[in-house]
Amino acid sequence: MSILCVGSVALDSIQTPFGSADRVVGGSAVYFTAAATLFSPVQVVGVVGDDYPLAQLDFLSARGADLSGIEQRSGESFFWAGRYHYDLNTRDTLQTRLGVFEHFEPKIPEAFRQARFVFLGNIDPALQHEVLDQVVAPDVIACDTMNYWIEGSRDSLLALLGRVRILMVNDEEVRQLAGQANLLRAARWVQAQGPEMVVVKKGEHGAILFADDWLFFVPGYPLEEVFDPTGAGDAFAGGFLGYLAHAGAITADDLRRAMVYGSSLGSYAVERFGIERLKDLPAAAIDRRVAELRDLTAFETHVRV
Amino acid sequence: MSILCVGSVALDSIQTPFGSADRVVGGSAVYFTAAATLFSPVQVVGVVGDDYPLAQLDFLSARGADLSGIEQRSGESFFWAGRYHYDLNTRDTLQTRLGVFEHFEPKIPEAFRQARFVFLGNIDPALQHEVLDQVVAPDVIACDTMNYWIEGSRDSLLALLGRVRILMVNDEEVRQLAGQANLLRAARWVQAQGPEMVVVKKGEHGAILFADDWLFFVPGYPLEEVFDPTGAGDAFAGGFLGYLAHAGAITADDLRRAMVYGSSLGSYAVERFGIERLKDLPAAAIDRRVAELRDLTAFETHVRV
Repeated sequence: MSILCVGSVALDSIQTPFGSADRVVGGSAVYFTAAATLFSPVQVVGVVGDDYPLAQLDFLSARGADLSGIEQRSGESFFWAGRYHYDLNTRDTLQTRLGVFEHFEPKIPEAFRQARFVFLGNIDPALQHEVLDQVVAPDVIACDTMNYWIEGSRDSLLALLGRVRILMVNDEEVRQLAGQANLLRAARWVQAQGPEMVVVKKGEHGAILFADDWLFFVPGYPLEEVFDPTGAGDAFAGGFLGYLAHAGAITADDLRRAMVYGSSLGSYAVERFGIERLKDLPAAAIDRRVAELRDLTAFETHVRV
Repeated sequence: MSILCVGSVALDSIQTPFGSADRVVGGSAVYFTAAATLFSPVQVVGVVGDDYPLAQLDFLSARGADLSGIEQRSGESFFWAGRYHYDLNTRDTLQTRLGVFEHFEPKIPEAFRQARFVFLGNIDPALQHEVLDQVVAPDVIACDTMNYWIEGSRDSLLALLGRVRILMVNDEEVRQLAGQANLLRAARWVQAQGPEMVVVKKGEHGAILFADDWLFFVPGYPLEEVFDPTGAGDAFAGGFLGYLAHAGAITADDLRRAMVYGSSLGSYAVERFGIERLKDLPAAAIDRRVAELRDLTAFETHVRV
């Protein structure tokens, strides 16, 4: 089962306490696709400038990404520069230049319009609406967003929530969106706006899936070395949705496993700069971390709810 | 199996966004004992002033606490006043008055010296040493500490680490103690100083047990209402060590379950002011939350490490 992914295709300059990487390929669509293609084919829609090193995305095509929906325009690619603090939990944005992304109008190629799984990366909610307008019969639509849109495009975002099945955001974002400090209440508020499920990503603290009448929690995989947190949330989303598309179903058991695959992918993403670690990650390594996450949380008890 | 607990027996004045409680019974020994006696008898050693409402601890005696080691002296009891911020994750200490606690010298009654399980609440490491000097053949010694002792009594604290089996602290404390931002490395550093195990409490984000060659993670139980975080860490410790003393063993399976009972107790502790919620908490309620924590994290997979 193929996934349609629409999001940013960017160049990132990243500084961390352990080093720096200059103008490396990134953006929500790239991180998502690098993770999701380890499970399922992905059809990518985005825009880049004529400065973009598209050849660096060849490894994605080689493992089942269809990049024909990435439009190349005259001008500069979306560029982000940021610096992480010592503890890697906070970062300063040093520069953002939208470039050709400023006038991005997602055009979904005819061949992509039958997608049943759709991932709407963190872009203007108006564009996320435009994507959905062009897809024929999507089944599982997941979307991300950020503080900028929650503040500046609230009405459009709330209308979008009525059209998506899964909202995937971080803990700060869901609190801000719901105007509610309590995570459980914030997620329930979002669900009342439309989405059947909310996935709240908490970085090293793991992630929670809020479904109709049950919750599932997966911890962050404990790492001794974190080099670059950039894109971890999108890699999580790629592992999560990639696993579901591969399973072709979204039973509660599939969703639980998808969360764990998301955590496995998110943890690998941060081990090297940019998308490096996701480039040739063996399936056995992904599975090993899934098994380790089970051993990290499993316990025996005779008591019943 | 009985547990010897030495710590503060205090009066707390607590302000939260949801209300306030004035001069209620608290302190590490009280929270620990309120949780641990739900599983095992506890022998308490501490000191209070002549202003202390000891009758408010009668419910502890009724369920197996021996309070004969609490010395009452002329003077004021340990008093703490604090105010929690809106998100309940941060708090300001408004006042601390040591009172009779300033000259506390733990005297372990003869009847308590055979204890096999010992909990050293967060007090001066010099006093924690004195307690251990008086216990004949302790088997499972767990201790807590805080930033004040990590900074001011580092040598004594490091010497103590060579005498305890389990260090139970929060994430900030283990990072500060080890001088290491990475939690896994910080815990490994502590283990190299002596303790076989480190339990790192992360509040709403759960807790991790670092054992010799394995880890166990338990999430915080997701709550819609948190009234008062005071004492949650000590209630966790009480549930953890109380369960182990009840089991009478510390196999890996017991330790895993003990972590989950700790999380269950910590989550109940914060639902009302002070120790109120722990006063008449039915065993069935504790077990129900243990089962819910299992359902929150359990997933099926065929993959193996």
